[in-house]
Amino acid sequence: MPLVECVPNFSEGRRQEVIDQILESIKKAGKITLLDSRMDPDHNRAVITFIGEPNECYKAAFAGCIKATELIDMNEHEGEHNRFGSTDVIPFIPVSDYTLEECAKLAQKLGAKIAKDLKIPVYLYGDATENPNRAVLQNYRTKSFQYEQLKEEIATNDDYIPDFGKRQTHETAGAINIGARNFLIAYNIYLDTNDMDIAKAIARNIRHSGGGLRYIQAGAMNIEERGVVQVSMNVTNYTGTPLHRVFDMVKREAERYGVAVTESEIYGMLPLDALLDAAESSLQLNNFDRNQIIEKRIFTEDEQDE
Amino acid sequence: MPLVECVPNFSEGRRQEVIDQILESIKKAGKITLLDSRMDPDHNRAVITFIGEPNECYKAAFAGCIKATELIDMNEHEGEHNRFGSTDVIPFIPVSDYTLEECAKLAQKLGAKIAKDLKIPVYLYGDATENPNRAVLQNYRTKSFQYEQLKEEIATNDDYIPDFGKRQTHETAGAINIGARNFLIAYNIYLDTNDMDIAKAIARNIRHSGGGLRYIQAGAMNIEERGVVQVSMNVTNYTGTPLHRVFDMVKREAERYGVAVTESEIYGMLPLDALLDAAESSLQLNNFDRNQIIEKRIFTEDEQDE
Repeated sequence: MPLVECVPNFSEGRRQEVIDQILESIKKAGKITLLDSRMDPDHNRAVITFIGEPNECYKAAFAGCIKATELIDMNEHEGEHNRFGSTDVIPFIPVSDYTLEECAKLAQKLGAKIAKDLKIPVYLYGDATENPNRAVLQNYRTKSFQYEQLKEEIATNDDYIPDFGKRQTHETAGAINIGARNFLIAYNIYLDTNDMDIAKAIARNIRHSGGGLRYIQAGAMNIEERGVVQVSMNVTNYTGTPLHRVFDMVKREAERYGVAVTESEIYGMLPLDALLDAAESSLQLNNFDRNQIIEKRIFTEDEQDE
Repeated sequence: MPLVECVPNFSEGRRQEVIDQILESIKKAGKITLLDSRMDPDHNRAVITFIGEPNECYKAAFAGCIKATELIDMNEHEGEHNRFGSTDVIPFIPVSDYTLEECAKLAQKLGAKIAKDLKIPVYLYGDATENPNRAVLQNYRTKSFQYEQLKEEIATNDDYIPDFGKRQTHETAGAINIGARNFLIAYNIYLDTNDMDIAKAIARNIRHSGGGLRYIQAGAMNIEERGVVQVSMNVTNYTGTPLHRVFDMVKREAERYGVAVTESEIYGMLPLDALLDAAESSLQLNNFDRNQIIEKRIFTEDEQDE
């Protein structure tokens, strides 16, 4: 079953009743599973995480955006987090049987619809845009260039021509960033030592910036309560750099200092495929078809029913 | 989500319309996913495989049994396979979030219901019985003791007192064996040699009967089209003897002859947990909670909905 994650951020982190109404409209509009919803009063921002089939996520995200447009007025919004609009960012993230490219298309489709139906200008980001200046949000949404500045300059500043919609912010909802990105896995490996220098050296060697693995960001962490150190990582693309390759490389680097790996740890959630990659690699299952997994058949049958 | 597999065998392998009606009643009675249905005209027998939540499988199996009782007359049945009744055997097999012991209780519950409602005597087998003489079907259902002999002797032969029901076979449906067993995984490991003696030696050392792993049956196979040999195995309890331990042991034994493992192979289906065991072991994920897998959340939410 094709499955995506959607993590819309809304510019409201103080009025619970507003987020409740947005959540309600999201759940009503699409057959999705809500994974998380959290409000931050300092940032004055809410982050909602849900998963489902792509078209269900699309419908749910659109409904959430309509409700936020109705209830949140950017002219009255204050908070620490940089933002462009009531619905501020909407990323689509592939989970299974769906590619990053397909998520990018889904983001573009939603962007076109929001601009047309709700008259809100849309900026694509992440892997949904081919414009290198737009890929990284932080490069063009800053402390000194957010909703208030965009509202003034959108008609004249050619760096801010929207991907969809007119060169005019919505009178209350501002503008929206819609994008696609890979699932990020937080992955930590514990070493049988308390020597931070060793953890730092390993982190330096395995991360992309240090000549290591392409999709790895890594640092060293001192885990005081255990009296050991940890190599702490973000795997930004687990298809490109699978967990087992990260594990093997850290283990090999640690051996160079005579240090053992005691265990590894996934922090938060991850897609099933990331673990199946590890299983297939360790068992040398070269010709395995994941539809041989019984639980996958239930997905498939459900799909046929619809 | 608790999930079991149920594989009822029916004494009809020639009349397609009979099996179609049984299938129809199974699908109608329970929310199950049909995995397979096959007829064997020589054995004059059909094997139906489906999965679902335990109570759905229970309802579906009961409905199939009612329909088979209606349509199959054992007094007119001929075929090569040993059998006791129209519905001949019903095993329940744990797939996920459900134990073998719970499957045994499900089998006992179904046995009691069938004996009471349909007046068919029931014999428990596998892990559903504590009687060692009944655990292995082949020990008390033989070429020379099947439906015809049971019908004659059930009232007088104390070896055949049913676990549920009267000492009298149903006039057309005979008797039924209902049981519980572990999921069996067919697992093969290919060696980088064509020397059958090496495959035989490894098979001998790793299997239970040879002093090896408790839940492993193993033999050697010559794979002519590839010009290599294979250690061919049944894993009769993948929780007790996980795949990665089998793989590691075969690899180590092969090394003793200077032979490499080229790949391994799962033949047919397997439960997801068997692969997650391998992933957790190879990544040393000692404190992993399988609910961190995104796809598991969809199961959970569906469950809550009901």
